[in-house]
Amino acid sequence: MTALELMGRQAKIAARKINAESEKREKALNAMATALIENTDAILKANNEDLAAAKQNGMSEALQDRLRLTADRIKGMADGILAVNSYNDPIGKILDGRTLKNGLKIERITVPMGVIGIIYEARPNVTSDAAALCLKAGSACILRGGKEAFNSNNAITEVLRGAIKSAGLDENSVQLVQDTTRASATELMNLTEYLDVLIPRGGAGLIRAVVENSKVPVIETGAGNCHIYVDSDADIDMAKEIVFNAKTSRPSVCNAAEKLLIHKDIYEKALPIIAERLAEKNVELRGDERAVKLLDCIPATDDDWATEYNDYIMSVKVVDSIDEAIDHIDRYSTRHSEAIITKNLKSSDYFTKNVDSACVYVNASTRFTDGGEMGLGAEIGISTQKLHARGPMGLEQIVSYKYIIHGDGQVR
Amino acid sequence: MTALELMGRQAKIAARKINAESEKREKALNAMATALIENTDAILKANNEDLAAAKQNGMSEALQDRLRLTADRIKGMADGILAVNSYNDPIGKILDGRTLKNGLKIERITVPMGVIGIIYEARPNVTSDAAALCLKAGSACILRGGKEAFNSNNAITEVLRGAIKSAGLDENSVQLVQDTTRASATELMNLTEYLDVLIPRGGAGLIRAVVENSKVPVIETGAGNCHIYVDSDADIDMAKEIVFNAKTSRPSVCNAAEKLLIHKDIYEKALPIIAERLAEKNVELRGDERAVKLLDCIPATDDDWATEYNDYIMSVKVVDSIDEAIDHIDRYSTRHSEAIITKNLKSSDYFTKNVDSACVYVNASTRFTDGGEMGLGAEIGISTQKLHARGPMGLEQIVSYKYIIHGDGQVR
Repeated sequence: MTALELMGRQAKIAARKINAESEKREKALNAMATALIENTDAILKANNEDLAAAKQNGMSEALQDRLRLTADRIKGMADGILAVNSYNDPIGKILDGRTLKNGLKIERITVPMGVIGIIYEARPNVTSDAAALCLKAGSACILRGGKEAFNSNNAITEVLRGAIKSAGLDENSVQLVQDTTRASATELMNLTEYLDVLIPRGGAGLIRAVVENSKVPVIETGAGNCHIYVDSDADIDMAKEIVFNAKTSRPSVCNAAEKLLIHKDIYEKALPIIAERLAEKNVELRGDERAVKLLDCIPATDDDWATEYNDYIMSVKVVDSIDEAIDHIDRYSTRHSEAIITKNLKSSDYFTKNVDSACVYVNASTRFTDGGEMGLGAEIGISTQKLHARGPMGLEQIVSYKYIIHGDGQVR
Repeated sequence: MTALELMGRQAKIAARKINAESEKREKALNAMATALIENTDAILKANNEDLAAAKQNGMSEALQDRLRLTADRIKGMADGILAVNSYNDPIGKILDGRTLKNGLKIERITVPMGVIGIIYEARPNVTSDAAALCLKAGSACILRGGKEAFNSNNAITEVLRGAIKSAGLDENSVQLVQDTTRASATELMNLTEYLDVLIPRGGAGLIRAVVENSKVPVIETGAGNCHIYVDSDADIDMAKEIVFNAKTSRPSVCNAAEKLLIHKDIYEKALPIIAERLAEKNVELRGDERAVKLLDCIPATDDDWATEYNDYIMSVKVVDSIDEAIDHIDRYSTRHSEAIITKNLKSSDYFTKNVDSACVYVNASTRFTDGGEMGLGAEIGISTQKLHARGPMGLEQIVSYKYIIHGDGQVR
């Protein structure tokens, strides 16, 4: 039995216990939040080790920002756990039911997933978010973070496991894979006997690898090649501020905008204004022919349209119509978040109906695609597939259900 | 571009049109039902060709039953389409929504899956069930049936496509893969550019192959190694009739019972009575040590416990406790349907809470796990996984959703 198979078996045993003892889950989550605060110094120390190594290895500033913890961010993690805990128990909820003519009583009731595997990259807050969500939702989790954040993740996990144990639950409800090589990720993808679902969180490469190779059912998350379309009827000032916010408020995250599509009737007036605003943060613009001509920026290549930069870079395309914008999005989007800026009702309806992405915005920044911002609580990722859950995967999205049918001898 | 890639592209184009023209879907479904009845003779003729070949190839009687169409069964298919059509449009339903403090208005709204691929074996009625469900749910489908039923499937598909076209929709909303070799199944599993989900329907081998090899997200369906547990407090007469029904009313289908677990305190009295009833249909019993001793039947091997017979065979195990029954189910079940026969409330609660299967029955036959029987309308399969949908996948289970967010300039 490999180390991961052992983890899988332990997780399955823990999962049965979590499901059986719902009151202890609440207690455990409170203990987890308290323990994170109490162990801030130890966690920061571990995080500093990771950051020092990251600097040495030349990690980009944007990625370092994802890796970095502060006392405030740890407080935020603890608050996130408490927020998760404040929700109603998502397990045992009767979703619907009916009594059939033959007297059979059917209930559809939420049940835990069981064991959830999560493969993620350099964001250590995922460790506590994921553990809290899984535990509240009655599932055990096996976490496999990136090697860049290993010390941070390990410190957080140990703190959480101690808290879980102190609350009388099985500490194996939360486990961190100790091997951060590719081999452990590959093995997780094949752990069908123990894992009910596998969720990758990270860059496009990681997600593609998991989607293509996993035998465990996957929820595809995260990759965000997000578009903002500025319609001919847009309020230019609003467009400027939304594009600026969506691109620059935190470029390293998946809901940051990467592409600007702008209608031909407005681009000559609007584009210089938007570009000037983006220049305040030194955003590098790459344009199609018309944009390059107007702004004298770098030409965008075909690769640009498909790339999630996670950096202060944005590509710009002038389109002849809303349909051209939608077709472009259909071709290049990762189906995460897209926005239209318009004052025209017909345009907004047409865009929201025909853009096939998890979150479609009218006159707002794509940066709101986030469980907390959308009022759904902490999330385990943003699903970009159509199966199971789409958009933020909060507490109510990481459960399953079963039918319970009561009869008194019915046969068919 | 291969034949399947072309199909995928055509399906994507058709899917956009289906979504846009919801009224025509209703019209198309009515036309499909009518056309099936009108073309009964042609469909039966094609089915007879398949049946003749099946007999020649020595197909088992149970499998021939799955393949066989009759005028009544075709009428049943048409009725199934009309039943699907009688439901409310599952698309555009606002599932929930909220207005945030910052004024953002969030709606979560059902949308079509897009393009659904279905790989299935020798049940031609799947062709019309799947086509109707997908179309009503706004999706195009690519159907890949087994070679044993190719003539039947092709005749049905042609009838349906004609009806869809006559109703003003794109006939490529429903397409049948013409190549029934393994190659076409493999290619479908890799058609990530065009398929949003792939649903295998059939035996354990087919399903395992799809689950293990598909890069397209899969909903695992169908394999049913279903158990009936006869508790020490069971009504023996009821147990006898439920086991008889669950085993023999249609042994070839996935909700038929394959295993009988029986408590040690009741088996000496109950087992001979149940065995006598099963003998009326010549059910072959295979037993564990105690069952063999009592009934003088064939001993069950370890393979037996994991096998879905789809035939007049049932294995019997005497258990010392309800926990042993649950552990056995946990180990061998395909998590489709299980039943307990008991008069004891504590036993029934314990069983329904701890058995982790899509449908858990108390005092009723497992044969009710069926969209129609459960009041959910025709279904595309019984999901045995925990992601997305579990149990019968009817109309409301084969849609996705998206968030539409309206603002007036909000940034984060």
